[in-house]
Amino acid sequence: MSGTTSVGQASPELLLELRPDTTLGRGVEDALRAAVRARRVTAGTRLPSTRVLARDLGVSRRLVVEAYEQLVAEGWLEARQGSGTFVAQAAPADAPGDAVDGGLPPEPERAPYDFFPGEPDLSSFPREAWLRALRDVLREAPDAVLGYPDPAGRPELRAALSAHLRRVRGAQAEPGRVIVVSGARQGLALLGRALARAGHERVAVERPSLPQHVDVLREAGLDVVGVQVDDEGLSVDDLARSGADVIVATPTHQMPLGVALSPVRRAELLTWATALDDRLIVEDDYDAEYRYDRRPVGALQGVAPAQVAYLGSASKTLAPGLRLGWLLLPERLVADVRRQKELDDGGSEVLGQLALARLLESAAYDRHLRRARRANRRRRDALVAALAEQLPGARLDGLAAGLHAIVRLPASVDIAALGAATAARGVAATPLPGAEGRSDALILGYARLSEPAIAEGVRRLAAAVADAA
Amino acid sequence: MSGTTSVGQASPELLLELRPDTTLGRGVEDALRAAVRARRVTAGTRLPSTRVLARDLGVSRRLVVEAYEQLVAEGWLEARQGSGTFVAQAAPADAPGDAVDGGLPPEPERAPYDFFPGEPDLSSFPREAWLRALRDVLREAPDAVLGYPDPAGRPELRAALSAHLRRVRGAQAEPGRVIVVSGARQGLALLGRALARAGHERVAVERPSLPQHVDVLREAGLDVVGVQVDDEGLSVDDLARSGADVIVATPTHQMPLGVALSPVRRAELLTWATALDDRLIVEDDYDAEYRYDRRPVGALQGVAPAQVAYLGSASKTLAPGLRLGWLLLPERLVADVRRQKELDDGGSEVLGQLALARLLESAAYDRHLRRARRANRRRRDALVAALAEQLPGARLDGLAAGLHAIVRLPASVDIAALGAATAARGVAATPLPGAEGRSDALILGYARLSEPAIAEGVRRLAAAVADAA
Repeated sequence: MSGTTSVGQASPELLLELRPDTTLGRGVEDALRAAVRARRVTAGTRLPSTRVLARDLGVSRRLVVEAYEQLVAEGWLEARQGSGTFVAQAAPADAPGDAVDGGLPPEPERAPYDFFPGEPDLSSFPREAWLRALRDVLREAPDAVLGYPDPAGRPELRAALSAHLRRVRGAQAEPGRVIVVSGARQGLALLGRALARAGHERVAVERPSLPQHVDVLREAGLDVVGVQVDDEGLSVDDLARSGADVIVATPTHQMPLGVALSPVRRAELLTWATALDDRLIVEDDYDAEYRYDRRPVGALQGVAPAQVAYLGSASKTLAPGLRLGWLLLPERLVADVRRQKELDDGGSEVLGQLALARLLESAAYDRHLRRARRANRRRRDALVAALAEQLPGARLDGLAAGLHAIVRLPASVDIAALGAATAARGVAATPLPGAEGRSDALILGYARLSEPAIAEGVRRLAAAVADAA
Repeated sequence: MSGTTSVGQASPELLLELRPDTTLGRGVEDALRAAVRARRVTAGTRLPSTRVLARDLGVSRRLVVEAYEQLVAEGWLEARQGSGTFVAQAAPADAPGDAVDGGLPPEPERAPYDFFPGEPDLSSFPREAWLRALRDVLREAPDAVLGYPDPAGRPELRAALSAHLRRVRGAQAEPGRVIVVSGARQGLALLGRALARAGHERVAVERPSLPQHVDVLREAGLDVVGVQVDDEGLSVDDLARSGADVIVATPTHQMPLGVALSPVRRAELLTWATALDDRLIVEDDYDAEYRYDRRPVGALQGVAPAQVAYLGSASKTLAPGLRLGWLLLPERLVADVRRQKELDDGGSEVLGQLALARLLESAAYDRHLRRARRANRRRRDALVAALAEQLPGARLDGLAAGLHAIVRLPASVDIAALGAATAARGVAATPLPGAEGRSDALILGYARLSEPAIAEGVRRLAAAVADAA
């Protein structure tokens, strides 16, 4: 049998179901015809060698050779000297071609000047460093790493994240309280489910905040209420009135308003959280890596690790497509959230986890962060300069940090009407949700655009505003 | 400012929070001391260059130079000529060292002869081919691929899976009805949630079946009932009596019993499913790639695509650690399941998706499958031979396909007592759940062991059985 090995290795897989009620010769022919007709194999597909197919079906090779010859003669198949037998271009089929390829929506097209706030500069993703890390992982990791993972994540990554969060965010971290998740969204989903199972009913979010977070929390079975945000960040008085015992907050850089929680409010929030045992702050530290001209502030988690569930991800520092996020939890929540991860997907993909661990352990991650911060500071400056020149009536907020700014437009501008005018000029900008559904501001993400594109985008935005005013 | 760029690139990130109420010189010193004390930076950690830290903090470089000098003099830091300033080995700390590194359980140790049934041979994972695919993806994919993904999966992979399932499993597939998930478990979790939201209440599973699946379905809010399995596979009469309108089934190779659903039962099951509009068969096709000496049977989905949700993964063909799975759904379920994926993690990691698409499009995946099938057939033969020699009183089931077999032991053997005896001999084997909690059989997975290890493991198992009889 080993003599057939080299041939077998090159043969594609093909399922043929032989009908028991025909002679074997006709059976192979019929099954092949049926496979082509039903477009199980499409024009240009290579078939297995006669030797391999005969072995797969448990029939003599002669039967398969004769079936191939007959179908070549009939025009269903095509023999190409030296490279095998293929389904012919002209082979008949029951189903129209588009049914087989169909059903996929076209990939969404983006506006040339798209100020979408959620994404970093994908063109600066360190592809070479990531590939090197993956190569080292694939060369060095023991086989057991490829088995069913620990739902909480690879120990290497949990340790590297713990050290990183201590050093860079002032967190009180240890590897055993870190859980690796597939992006911050999954972190919130798992935490939400764990809290709901533990009897929590009402969760507060900042108003405004990411609408996706509200959906994720509701899906977990929680009641979601909004809490006001002003120039000092979220209102702790309003939180206390809300009846919620959990708040999802963005203290470092409010999403989307861009304000930092003031020292007074930080103290109030911690007092609120420690007043009752089951209160919890979910600290969504989504873009803390990007601060420009203010002193860094450590994570709330570093001050009150028993009251804060810290949520971070590589989506704003590396790329959202990696789906790498992490939770740093109070001890009492670790087992419940790990169990939710186990019940959800059994644990995250391991190669990306190990690659990120290597980037964190080496200088590569910090180096990338510093480079990205410098580039985004330049983009922010370009945005500020362009707006000062093109839209002098607008007021800017949230500039000291992050990857987006808030542009408040003169009251005369109807933002609801602005959408069509900006779209016509190739500009996409998200309205900031305002009171009673009215909006008087735009959220402009600047990380995805080059400095010249930012200037041109603002020029076009100003033209649209002039039309809509 | 650009003159500092090359220095800044090499500097690690470090958060220092300056207290507003001290003079700046003391402030930097105190903040550094506090960071070392709190083990935010641990012994051997390199600090940022004085130039970079001064810029990060917005203070003069002289202040940072003086602070570093003072702390070196006090023994907190260590200056190494030409390579920078480091936290000293002897630096004092508030927290004991193990609190920072701690909390991680040791990685579980496996028995040398572990017949765990769920895993393929991880040593044959095609590391080189996978790395080549990742390299090609990272070199060629446009930047947009790295952004927030389509929750349903990358179009390349959905198309490649669709073609593969048509050709190899006889499925009626099109890319628009394929949803990429993080392993089969997440596929079942998302489907379960979507079904629960759509008003389904009761789901049947085969008895016995994977206990994890029961947990996942219950977590989705569904009532789970068991349906009997005999030599012809699941009992459709029992299913009809159960009151469930959804069944999770393993028709190709029952997990764990190893029987194939008989042609009569397949017909009965399809009749059951088509009798009412909202009935659904979840076809868990977990190890269909491995069949040895029986004719291949196509997926049920190929016969009744509107009544079957097909579930597959790369966990048994490549490696569970990749967390790559897929659902092929009836049209009516696509939007709901996609929405559940969006609410759960926003979509799967993209690089692995694109690598798998490349393996499927090239001959690499099929070649790997053929090689793995040959190797596992040899392992199965080794298991059969060893059992015939060492445990002639045992009866074997489920041998024609898959990666495990059922070994029924003589009634005199107390399987509950066997565990300790096998463990003492370095053997791990899972008891098959039997009636009333009693078990008279073992599930032996053979894919993870070499042929000599299988023979030795069975020899040791036989010795344990002799003791327990």
